[in-house]
Amino acid sequence: MTRMKILTEADLRRIVPLDREAVACVEDAFHALATKSVAMPPILRLDIPEHRGEVDVKTAYVPGLDGFAIKISPGFFDNPSIGLPSTNGMMVLLSSRTGLVQALLLDNGYLTDVRTAAAGAVAAKHLAREDSSVAAILGAGMQAGLQLEALSLVRPIREARLWARKASRAEAAAAALSEKLGIPVRAVADPKAAVADADVIVTTTPSEEPILQAEWLQAGQHVTAMGSDAEHKNELDPNAILRATYVADSLKQTRRLGELHHAIAAGIVSPGAEFAELGHVVAGLRGGRSRADEITIADLTGTGIQDTAIATLAFARAEAADAGVAFES
Amino acid sequence: MTRMKILTEADLRRIVPLDREAVACVEDAFHALATKSVAMPPILRLDIPEHRGEVDVKTAYVPGLDGFAIKISPGFFDNPSIGLPSTNGMMVLLSSRTGLVQALLLDNGYLTDVRTAAAGAVAAKHLAREDSSVAAILGAGMQAGLQLEALSLVRPIREARLWARKASRAEAAAAALSEKLGIPVRAVADPKAAVADADVIVTTTPSEEPILQAEWLQAGQHVTAMGSDAEHKNELDPNAILRATYVADSLKQTRRLGELHHAIAAGIVSPGAEFAELGHVVAGLRGGRSRADEITIADLTGTGIQDTAIATLAFARAEAADAGVAFES
Repeated sequence: MTRMKILTEADLRRIVPLDREAVACVEDAFHALATKSVAMPPILRLDIPEHRGEVDVKTAYVPGLDGFAIKISPGFFDNPSIGLPSTNGMMVLLSSRTGLVQALLLDNGYLTDVRTAAAGAVAAKHLAREDSSVAAILGAGMQAGLQLEALSLVRPIREARLWARKASRAEAAAAALSEKLGIPVRAVADPKAAVADADVIVTTTPSEEPILQAEWLQAGQHVTAMGSDAEHKNELDPNAILRATYVADSLKQTRRLGELHHAIAAGIVSPGAEFAELGHVVAGLRGGRSRADEITIADLTGTGIQDTAIATLAFARAEAADAGVAFES
Repeated sequence: MTRMKILTEADLRRIVPLDREAVACVEDAFHALATKSVAMPPILRLDIPEHRGEVDVKTAYVPGLDGFAIKISPGFFDNPSIGLPSTNGMMVLLSSRTGLVQALLLDNGYLTDVRTAAAGAVAAKHLAREDSSVAAILGAGMQAGLQLEALSLVRPIREARLWARKASRAEAAAAALSEKLGIPVRAVADPKAAVADADVIVTTTPSEEPILQAEWLQAGQHVTAMGSDAEHKNELDPNAILRATYVADSLKQTRRLGELHHAIAAGIVSPGAEFAELGHVVAGLRGGRSRADEITIADLTGTGIQDTAIATLAFARAEAADAGVAFES
């Protein structure tokens, strides 16, 4: 018999808000990725073109953690036409010692939202100027809001601009974020105007063509590009990488899926070029920002280690709060 | 909100016994593998050497089926020392149309046992002589018994011999199987004697060195080798393949993991040599056994399509029997 805990999305929203501890747990995961013999196999991907569907399965093991997560992330892009969200999914947390299932985290993708936003905060904490106070967000989806919220946990953000392809969505998102975060968030119709004089720029779109142009970047800015998690997605003009100190969440992944992939494809960066990873910077093994006038870019594609980190945090909090349902099989 | 069904191992043992319908559903899956554009990505594998642990994640999508399974199979080989089984695991069944979770099958590996044994029956049904009545089983574990039971569903087996490295285990397994199946099952101390004059031989061991020697094989015999599901496992003398009509469950896998892998490594078979797959034989696209005195070998490594097939059957039966617990998240 295996005894496991089942946690619903409602349980998880209650016990794992996007807070400093969530950011710290993802920061620790990147530290481990750079300093321990983490096992993070390539993503398993299944495509179901008949229904415009795809499923990614990610996992990672961090020595020293009691558990490791296996995350199932489906994306079915015809779902909105029948009133369902495009993405959902769940995580299974297994014991690192016995392989037994410890918990089923039926989060419908919520924990992914949190760990993705938390990675943005980790990037800004280690790469953006400490006095960064103006944020520019490209995109108006779930991550647009969460990235701004996460950024506010690590930098003294006092105003934000938000651009999205559809002006009405940008207006609505900006109004909602102003209210939620208690700072002025203004919708801006032109992406160039949105990023001008911003201290931190976060790109959160599913764009397949560059939005952020290299020549728009100004001395001292930090860019977190988190929209590209597949070969065909691309938010940054590949030349931007030449103007900046570039940091990947996982070089192996960004060479294949991230903004770096497009710079390599364009012949701007050599396929074997070495760059720092976020974990190296977190662990102090590689420098991040060295000057106030430097431009920095963090290319985030999402890693299995973040899933293991947030699932471990969720399980620990569920145990402490006696949340969820115990189940035997 | 996602509404899913949770089924325990006890539910699944009750509603999915090893029966002719289970064999038929796995047979249909092999048919589909040969005739439809099945998507079956490479296995995701994570190793945790500190705890002698490994996890495989398999999946496959079959056009036309409402759902597809993602199977998580951990193997932690120090578990027996603390009173736990080495292997366990679960399956998640997702809708092919929306990606939503339809069911959590908390089977602790039971469905894998059934679909693995069912594949042995499919192989024997299409490759063993119709009048096969004497079986030889090498190994005394769970699959030794289930393979014999599955074989009895498709061939008129009236007696069996069983060999295992430990004589006491062979005796115990033979006695239990005699009682369960109502046919004489005799433990035999010498593997050569066990297989002599048998019609069907099934190898079910985790051996890392060949047990079944090529020169032991006799005209008309069929061999199902199902123990090798990893690079280092090897039950057949690689020369056996030269004496037989060889059929793989998935050539891509047997070239890497199966008995074929060792024949290639030994230089006996060329890496690009083409062989039939079981699905081709099931679908009539390739011949199986053409003469009564032919020797046939089925090399089974286990495929994600079998998991999708058995999970789909389990879900359909659970719906019909109103088994399991409905859960919302």
